[in-house]
Amino acid sequence: MVKIIVDCFGGDKSPDANVEGSLAALEKFSDLSLILTGDENILKEKLEGKKYDPSRLEILHAPEVVGCDEKPTDVIRLKKESSMMKAIKLLREDDSISGMVSAGSTGALVAAATLRIGRIRGIIRPAFCPILPTMNGGIVGICDSGANVDITADYLQQYAIMASAYLESVYGIEHPRVALLNIGTEETKGDDLRKTAYPLLESTKGINFVGNMESRDLLTGKYDVVVCDGFSGNVLVKSTEGACLEMLKLLKRDISSSIFNKIGALFMYKMFMKEKEFMNYQNYGGSILLGTEKTVVKGHGSSNARAIEKCIEQAYKTKTGGLSERIEAALAENQKAE
Amino acid sequence: MVKIIVDCFGGDKSPDANVEGSLAALEKFSDLSLILTGDENILKEKLEGKKYDPSRLEILHAPEVVGCDEKPTDVIRLKKESSMMKAIKLLREDDSISGMVSAGSTGALVAAATLRIGRIRGIIRPAFCPILPTMNGGIVGICDSGANVDITADYLQQYAIMASAYLESVYGIEHPRVALLNIGTEETKGDDLRKTAYPLLESTKGINFVGNMESRDLLTGKYDVVVCDGFSGNVLVKSTEGACLEMLKLLKRDISSSIFNKIGALFMYKMFMKEKEFMNYQNYGGSILLGTEKTVVKGHGSSNARAIEKCIEQAYKTKTGGLSERIEAALAENQKAE
Repeated sequence: MVKIIVDCFGGDKSPDANVEGSLAALEKFSDLSLILTGDENILKEKLEGKKYDPSRLEILHAPEVVGCDEKPTDVIRLKKESSMMKAIKLLREDDSISGMVSAGSTGALVAAATLRIGRIRGIIRPAFCPILPTMNGGIVGICDSGANVDITADYLQQYAIMASAYLESVYGIEHPRVALLNIGTEETKGDDLRKTAYPLLESTKGINFVGNMESRDLLTGKYDVVVCDGFSGNVLVKSTEGACLEMLKLLKRDISSSIFNKIGALFMYKMFMKEKEFMNYQNYGGSILLGTEKTVVKGHGSSNARAIEKCIEQAYKTKTGGLSERIEAALAENQKAE
Repeated sequence: MVKIIVDCFGGDKSPDANVEGSLAALEKFSDLSLILTGDENILKEKLEGKKYDPSRLEILHAPEVVGCDEKPTDVIRLKKESSMMKAIKLLREDDSISGMVSAGSTGALVAAATLRIGRIRGIIRPAFCPILPTMNGGIVGICDSGANVDITADYLQQYAIMASAYLESVYGIEHPRVALLNIGTEETKGDDLRKTAYPLLESTKGINFVGNMESRDLLTGKYDVVVCDGFSGNVLVKSTEGACLEMLKLLKRDISSSIFNKIGALFMYKMFMKEKEFMNYQNYGGSILLGTEKTVVKGHGSSNARAIEKCIEQAYKTKTGGLSERIEAALAENQKAE
């Protein structure tokens, strides 16, 4: 049985989306068991009349909620009874539980998880690895997208190792092509950090390093993993999402501006729906925090039930795919080599 | 008379696009005079039969061409007879000339311009400031997009001053709203560089600093100037362009995949053309190098005649709008304050 905790009081659509997503995940995986954290009365009410296997669903009462603007240090110190902090505490203490999902405050989650869960031996700092769809129907993982902003080349090497193991174990991608985010493809490009990281990545065992990537190639499908500092990774992910979103808005506005466009759009309805669905990040789950001893998946703040279900699936597959073991083995191989 | 040099042997579509764009600019501005650098025989041939005022067009013979992959230091040392290096030399030596346009190798142009043209007094390093269209029909300038990758907060302050003066003098935007690219909007977000830069920008006189910007808001039209280190600025610009481009490709592919979509697209033809035109960077000219004593505009490598014409217009307007004087005045105001 794979046991995962779901923080049901984090995210704009919680607790409804979180409860619904949890039930969908239970339905999907028969060897999955969930613990929902949050106000017990509300959760029981939401579950009333729903069809699920009660032996695979528990509730852990947590009367408090973490707001999205609260200071991480305050959350850790003062919000011990919140659905997020109780989830983290239980994850830490119960060895039979392998992971948790939360769509609550990113800052609080990273800080508390880093502090409380413990890192895989040898990992300097955990890092985020969100997944984006590529234009050829594949996916690309970006590590790090904002957990650590002031870093050294050693971090980038670990990101490459961890994200490769993640794409292999959860998405079944063999020998993921790893690229270093840079401002040009030539080996000598970039700032001091990139110039130090390039030869380090080249000499790293067990990864398939293919060189530098310019950010305009992120969605082309040429790469499976992109490693970067948290600052530029955040810029990369959010500007890509932002540009796609703004273009969709422009299309929508232009379509409604003329009767010809509206007629045209009717013909193309299926296509537009397909594209909207394709670019809907809710379908790609959340951003995993790589490097912690147990799995932490951060859902988008606006996660709907489908997104929460995908987050749980990601956490589930890190266990069944043996992510931690893969990361440990890859780290050991590189330490031996030194 | 405003005198500008056009490097006619740089860019994928040179010399044809460069010559055509030059003639269009001459047509547009009656007090503009151009000097074209490049192979004299070829240029004369390209000009044959064309209608233009010969008193406002000169040719400076330059038999060599700078390749796009050549090492900047080699170009400066060995390619003295190239159209780019002769343009830079003339710009430096002739006080009656105010600027130049080149669509050639970025690295060579930055290195040579920084070394040969001289900086405005007080400027640490010149920086690029490309312009992107926003979804509400406006524009946004991003400084720096790749000239300097290892920087301090002082650079960002100068970028804010220079880019504000640029948007004012060339695009007529009053009190441009300046944002600091960051990974969150709160004042305390980001790495050490951003944390130091925020209060510095707040205390800078003569700019309209409005706080941090997340990269997903670049195209919303909420900001006129975004300041950032050259690494993340490069990521910001290229990932935005890349995402828009990939979405257009996806649309195109999907349209041709079914007869319904094709019929729909016919109805929406005008709309698609408008959007394509709107996102066509050729309409927005090139990226100015801010901080040099004389104006250097870098055109995109694939610049067509329209793009070259816009680049010349940008260089022309830096002179008529008094860009250098504005930057000098703003720098002086802030030095006095210290």
